[in-house]
Amino acid sequence: MKDLESLSATQAIKALSKREIRATDLLLSCLDRIGQKESLVRAWTSLGKENALSRAKQLDKGAFQGILHGLPIGVKDLYDTYDLPTAYGSPIYANHYPVADAVSVALMRQEGGIILGKTVTTEFASFKGGATTNPYASKHSPGGSSSGSAAAVADFMVPLATGSQTAGSIIRPASFCGVVGFKPSLGKVSIAGVKSLSVTLDTMGCFGRTIEDVGLGLAAMSGDHRLAKIEVLHNKPRIGICKTSNWSAAQKEAATALAVARHAAEIIAKGTVDDFSLPMACDDLTQAQSRIMLSEMSRSLLFERIHYAKKLSPQLIKQLSDGATISYEQYAKDLLLANHAKTAVAELFTNEIDILIAPSAAGEAPSMRDGTGDPIFCRGWTLLGLPCININVASGPNGLPVGVQLITGPGKDHFLLSAARSFALALPDPTLRDQA
Amino acid sequence: MKDLESLSATQAIKALSKREIRATDLLLSCLDRIGQKESLVRAWTSLGKENALSRAKQLDKGAFQGILHGLPIGVKDLYDTYDLPTAYGSPIYANHYPVADAVSVALMRQEGGIILGKTVTTEFASFKGGATTNPYASKHSPGGSSSGSAAAVADFMVPLATGSQTAGSIIRPASFCGVVGFKPSLGKVSIAGVKSLSVTLDTMGCFGRTIEDVGLGLAAMSGDHRLAKIEVLHNKPRIGICKTSNWSAAQKEAATALAVARHAAEIIAKGTVDDFSLPMACDDLTQAQSRIMLSEMSRSLLFERIHYAKKLSPQLIKQLSDGATISYEQYAKDLLLANHAKTAVAELFTNEIDILIAPSAAGEAPSMRDGTGDPIFCRGWTLLGLPCININVASGPNGLPVGVQLITGPGKDHFLLSAARSFALALPDPTLRDQA
Repeated sequence: MKDLESLSATQAIKALSKREIRATDLLLSCLDRIGQKESLVRAWTSLGKENALSRAKQLDKGAFQGILHGLPIGVKDLYDTYDLPTAYGSPIYANHYPVADAVSVALMRQEGGIILGKTVTTEFASFKGGATTNPYASKHSPGGSSSGSAAAVADFMVPLATGSQTAGSIIRPASFCGVVGFKPSLGKVSIAGVKSLSVTLDTMGCFGRTIEDVGLGLAAMSGDHRLAKIEVLHNKPRIGICKTSNWSAAQKEAATALAVARHAAEIIAKGTVDDFSLPMACDDLTQAQSRIMLSEMSRSLLFERIHYAKKLSPQLIKQLSDGATISYEQYAKDLLLANHAKTAVAELFTNEIDILIAPSAAGEAPSMRDGTGDPIFCRGWTLLGLPCININVASGPNGLPVGVQLITGPGKDHFLLSAARSFALALPDPTLRDQA
Repeated sequence: MKDLESLSATQAIKALSKREIRATDLLLSCLDRIGQKESLVRAWTSLGKENALSRAKQLDKGAFQGILHGLPIGVKDLYDTYDLPTAYGSPIYANHYPVADAVSVALMRQEGGIILGKTVTTEFASFKGGATTNPYASKHSPGGSSSGSAAAVADFMVPLATGSQTAGSIIRPASFCGVVGFKPSLGKVSIAGVKSLSVTLDTMGCFGRTIEDVGLGLAAMSGDHRLAKIEVLHNKPRIGICKTSNWSAAQKEAATALAVARHAAEIIAKGTVDDFSLPMACDDLTQAQSRIMLSEMSRSLLFERIHYAKKLSPQLIKQLSDGATISYEQYAKDLLLANHAKTAVAELFTNEIDILIAPSAAGEAPSMRDGTGDPIFCRGWTLLGLPCININVASGPNGLPVGVQLITGPGKDHFLLSAARSFALALPDPTLRDQA
């Protein structure tokens, strides 16, 4: 019964389904770990210990509830939960109890998932960081906006936690914290009941310590149970390395990470893996994403700006003001650009390539005082709505993890998870293969 | 100062901006009308009389606030409002006060709109009707789910009211109540803060008594102020009559409406207007929409089904059960079908046709005891995400209004409004031309 908190979600579910371990014990192990580490990591905004324990006992006594039976889960505090305070990372909503769960939270509970608590988000999933530190080095940021979820999973506090990505809020913290982060296709998970930044961009996903785990999490969040069963690839995929037009922002360790990734990719592709450039239609996607996000934020958070301006951070106020100056014409032009690029990229992923490998972030986690890091390497992929998964492949000058993201065509989430497993199994370092 | 409640939104805004009328007097006229007719029409779930009056006085004294300065507005009770109870048409949420306004409500208030009250929606915008009656004949349904908004606008209680459409919840009640109903392109208005039925389908729009008015409403709800300035068409459009594959469900008055519409279309097209068939890719869209909606509803309302099953209607419980039996494979197949059809239709509206004219509903409003009517003539267009506008063109055997919908390509909302004005001005009956 020792070290149950170090089980992956998939391992835990297997043991729980055979009644080899009890949900109660798994939960207590997680709570122990949180007790030891939370004062340093600060991943949580609230814990629902009593409710979670009582649910665990109920599940231990009852029939098998579903694919998350007895699994403790962290929920980003951007998601509504009826029984836990939901503040969206803002003092405006301190002690707010929503009337209902977010749709994806209700689905996870229905599958037997135990919502253990809420994890720290930056202010309204924007850029002002919370208290969470990087479990690898507490003077470094865990990234954002899904800071608490990435850190809690990395630090073995829970095997699974939810995130959301509007710019780079899943892939970036996953890379900084050395965990698997999965941002599925746009629309795969309902956004209902999650505080909105940008309806065009907001994408729900999750963090785990293995690829199977994030598949399991997404299976519950979306209702697509096929994602809970991930094989490895049986055919060799067409893979390209995509440094993107932002490559000049990459630090040395991002180049190292791509080199490691290329080597693993060549093993599964059974041949040379070349650099791959996106079509012309994808130029300017990073800038377009930035403008679309700011423009929509200025509308999404208008209520808060009018009613609670004094409780918003100066950074956020500036973003909202900047967003309000973007003309609707420019916004509409950016949406049109994105649509053309989506069409071009969907064709690309049908005819030319199966998987692209790109940097997850510019480098390893920045120091806490420098903020949550730049989402520059994620903005374009998020706007394209493509499924992306972060895999840890290298480390930076401070010994912190550095990941790459694997990307595929829209709707091919299951294929991406399979490819990611094959890829992880081809990594040189055996401990990194545990991610598969 | 008499009959201010009969002014169109655009007329009222003109007079308000010149300070020829006061917002307070307009509001009092609307309240008078509501006082006279509400016991019969039952369009409202709540009225915020005091707040509205105080806001009107403030606007009368202050600077011009925006494009809706001083306009009384009805908000469908599916939209969150922080100062008015928001029940989503369900006893579960009786007396629920959300912590914030829906994004589109905040935008309307920011433009000087006065939220006068909340209008009746069917249960969670699904099929169980509310108390609202058709202002033309109280034994008939106003349609649904945006029942109260359509009826309130038709009965001169407010010049403008919001709606939402997942199957046919704007276009159908607009046709039954003889008002202009505008369902813009999917994604044009943020869905944030509106209770979710189906993220893939839910589309926010509005009702007015003129085409200019719904353009004005949408301009505020979306932030696209270009929609507040609608000309008529300067070039002759390519128009087709699309009876759709559901034509066998149409009643005689729907055929009459199409005949009237064809005549008006031929005037603006300056030539013959022929029938137009959708491409093969659009076969089965009606069935696909129905399955996608049911499947997503079973997830969107899972929380309510688990926690408050006894407060859900038997009809809704049945829908949720039906939805839960649809396999994810079938759901994914339907989404794929919709995507192929969207691509085909977008090309069509670029290369072959500018405007399609189709039935808004099978016929005139059914009797109250027969429900809110069948959305069959709207399901496919909603799934395609195309902008649709209902214009009143004829009447049925009971003398009730019968509309047609004008439809165009995705994102061409401004063009659709212009085309609709030209079309309305070509109608034979002079009173119908007032819709322009």
